[in-house]
Amino acid sequence: MPSPELPDASAQLRARLAELSDLGGIAGLMGWDQQTMMPPGGAGPRGAAMETLERIAHERATAPELGALLDTVDGGDPLVRMARRDHDRARRVPVELAAEIARVGADAIGVWIQAREESDFAAFRPALERNLELRRRYAECFPEVDHPYDALLDRFEPDMTTAQVREVFARLRAGLVPLTEAIAAAPAPPLLQGPFDVGEQRELALEIVRAFGFDDAEWRLDRAVHPFACAISPTDIRVTGRFDEGSLSGVFAVMHEVGHGLYEHGVDPELARTTLGSGASLGMHESQSRLWENLVGRSEPFWRHWLPRARERFPAALGGVSLEDFLRAVNVVRPTLIRVEADEATYSLHVILRFELEVALMEGTLSVAELPEAWNAKMKELLGIDVPDDARGVLQDIHWAHGELGYFPTYALGNIVAAQLWRAARTDLPALDDQLAAGDHAPLREWLREHVHRHGRLLTPSELLHRATGAELDPQPLLDHLDAKYRALYRLGA
Amino acid sequence: MPSPELPDASAQLRARLAELSDLGGIAGLMGWDQQTMMPPGGAGPRGAAMETLERIAHERATAPELGALLDTVDGGDPLVRMARRDHDRARRVPVELAAEIARVGADAIGVWIQAREESDFAAFRPALERNLELRRRYAECFPEVDHPYDALLDRFEPDMTTAQVREVFARLRAGLVPLTEAIAAAPAPPLLQGPFDVGEQRELALEIVRAFGFDDAEWRLDRAVHPFACAISPTDIRVTGRFDEGSLSGVFAVMHEVGHGLYEHGVDPELARTTLGSGASLGMHESQSRLWENLVGRSEPFWRHWLPRARERFPAALGGVSLEDFLRAVNVVRPTLIRVEADEATYSLHVILRFELEVALMEGTLSVAELPEAWNAKMKELLGIDVPDDARGVLQDIHWAHGELGYFPTYALGNIVAAQLWRAARTDLPALDDQLAAGDHAPLREWLREHVHRHGRLLTPSELLHRATGAELDPQPLLDHLDAKYRALYRLGA
Repeated sequence: MPSPELPDASAQLRARLAELSDLGGIAGLMGWDQQTMMPPGGAGPRGAAMETLERIAHERATAPELGALLDTVDGGDPLVRMARRDHDRARRVPVELAAEIARVGADAIGVWIQAREESDFAAFRPALERNLELRRRYAECFPEVDHPYDALLDRFEPDMTTAQVREVFARLRAGLVPLTEAIAAAPAPPLLQGPFDVGEQRELALEIVRAFGFDDAEWRLDRAVHPFACAISPTDIRVTGRFDEGSLSGVFAVMHEVGHGLYEHGVDPELARTTLGSGASLGMHESQSRLWENLVGRSEPFWRHWLPRARERFPAALGGVSLEDFLRAVNVVRPTLIRVEADEATYSLHVILRFELEVALMEGTLSVAELPEAWNAKMKELLGIDVPDDARGVLQDIHWAHGELGYFPTYALGNIVAAQLWRAARTDLPALDDQLAAGDHAPLREWLREHVHRHGRLLTPSELLHRATGAELDPQPLLDHLDAKYRALYRLGA
Repeated sequence: MPSPELPDASAQLRARLAELSDLGGIAGLMGWDQQTMMPPGGAGPRGAAMETLERIAHERATAPELGALLDTVDGGDPLVRMARRDHDRARRVPVELAAEIARVGADAIGVWIQAREESDFAAFRPALERNLELRRRYAECFPEVDHPYDALLDRFEPDMTTAQVREVFARLRAGLVPLTEAIAAAPAPPLLQGPFDVGEQRELALEIVRAFGFDDAEWRLDRAVHPFACAISPTDIRVTGRFDEGSLSGVFAVMHEVGHGLYEHGVDPELARTTLGSGASLGMHESQSRLWENLVGRSEPFWRHWLPRARERFPAALGGVSLEDFLRAVNVVRPTLIRVEADEATYSLHVILRFELEVALMEGTLSVAELPEAWNAKMKELLGIDVPDDARGVLQDIHWAHGELGYFPTYALGNIVAAQLWRAARTDLPALDDQLAAGDHAPLREWLREHVHRHGRLLTPSELLHRATGAELDPQPLLDHLDAKYRALYRLGA
């Protein structure tokens, strides 16, 4: 029999969850401002204020009163189920451990910056060892998992297991290595020759993403050193970018970030200010950014519409470039050292490398001291290249400095899921190529909204994927897409 | 005998006060972003998030644990004394009343905007009656005060009483009315003829305020419809402005806001993230903005340095304007309807009008229904002008819509204190005119930092004033300044 306090408890619960959602948005605003607007002098106090907000949010997310409300209300409600999950997970980690992870991670950033500058892994090693040890202790808070790495993965990719990622990545790797080798053996296409005026690039990027759904009444585009997207609220989406005169890569980065933004923007407004009002996982998020950046933004139909417009903005640089040459140039595949500069085909190999090393570190089969050597060996194995120094090798990413293990796999999961969704969307929208070639992106956006965005966290990533595509996580559509695309572009043999 | 927990309690107290200070900075950032950067779609969720943050801040400011810590630690410490004051005052107001005031005030804004647009006071009247009633209930939370208006004043001007303001304003009024009448009878000087390019105005304003102390590493200047200043932290000062091609008033508005910013920027860093780390009162704050805007920024020595620079930026508009004509133009005095557009001499009369009406409303000798008529009669009495409609009369300000009574007097207190500080600074800095004429603002800024800024809230406004000037609050220096200035500018008889 429902308790007579039920309606009241339910309203109280919703108020507490709305508060947690608000605190998330506020933290987002502080982070956005820090990277776009804040004068340098604000850095110290901003760090302190962000710590304060995080501590308050943690306190309220783990409050016993919240637990009591969750016990009182109907556990069959998906909102209650997800809120219970978040609450239980947050309570599993002792507050001292959470604080130590945050503090040690923040301190390690400075050490890492210095070490990377001097390409001195030994200087970074103690900080990384400390981060790893804390992450092991974190994983111990979840003794029920099959593999300690599962506890880390779960922070970003709920319900995904190490075993599952390992199996999927093994298939992806088996397909990607020969494909990228074959491409690398083919003659490289000529790159585009700039300069591309950065103001014009910004205008082109805005023109494109406005056609995707970016609307000045609910979005902003600002400059930041590292592009990112951030939903302050579903109707206040901030994306950032950086344009460089030498190439059009900033335009693609904006498409990528707007893909993230469209996801948050498309969540059912009914879910706003609840636990369910954001993307289902980082992998699902990355599927949206990659889909717009690569599957749409590097496709032939897309540029059939946009290249003439780009030529108007850059007559000197693009006036004499054919559609085919343009596509080859913006789809160039080359094994390179740096993940964030990697192309559509090699990118996932950089991720697989990191995943394999992270799992070995957590299992204890690899020590931090052995990491640079293991890194370099895997770069040779997966991408066929020699790493000249640790700055361009094991020290290149901020994630480990910050203590984030378990994050990297979501990038490649995003590539995989994007290709699966793309295949399903093309089946449902037989005229998609013509629509893109006509500059009409609405049908695709609405398809994604219907099958992915609107659900927020109502469905798990695997439920979402299954409903949208009828399939489990599967790297084959990605491999098929890359194979078909690059065989055509590079005129490789069958 | 001190308790053995003393050091620990003191550290805990400081941590709690730092947290409150951080929450204040976060609220400032949210407000700044709302008025400068936020896309319109963010408005609804931003309002909700600001409410959440305010509720959390109120909860923590009134937490019994904070009270217990304050009881434990040394009450002689000025920090503890001020924290105790804030805590006690916050606890006096029932949380339901505070929430109702906030909610009703927020709702009334929309009603007011509509009513002002249609110049329809009757439509606004119920909302204002509700605000007034809530402010009466607020004042009842402080039964020890001599006058209910004291409780409202105290929110903005600690320890100031209605009796004191009444006495000071009576003297100010007695001096200002004949002076402004005499000026109005004199022929008006010609205004400057633009256009003044808004980009050039912004550059001129930046050039000037950089000489005041605005430093790009710790400040920002952005566009906002209503200029304001906000210290996210003492090393992250945001000022806003708006430039209009028709006049240079935007340049003066930036000097004004930078005056506020210099105050927060100049507080002793030792006081940062404590209860004492901001300005002593709104009146003291306004003294700083007015001092830079009017006493510096509309003075002859100042423009001896800056007019040649302004002429370079606006050769067509200013090329043929002499220093004397320029000064007469930027110091034009005319009785006008709108407070925010009022000049240095008539401004305080607008404030006195509002103060007298607010006190009568709180006393119950004036009803809200009678307010428009009372407003118009006072405008005639104080400024000699007829009010054509309520939009340009009683409906012009947002303050009453928002439920803020007791705020207006601080504007005129700022004018008074500015003139007192100015007199003292001139005594201490005999070369001040020469310094300003040489574009050297550092001696004045350092004098203000030494005598006002660095103390934060360590001293009360009257203590600050007394130490800096040797005097109590006194309108005579302001009257003397205006009298001397305008007699010279307008060549009035003695």
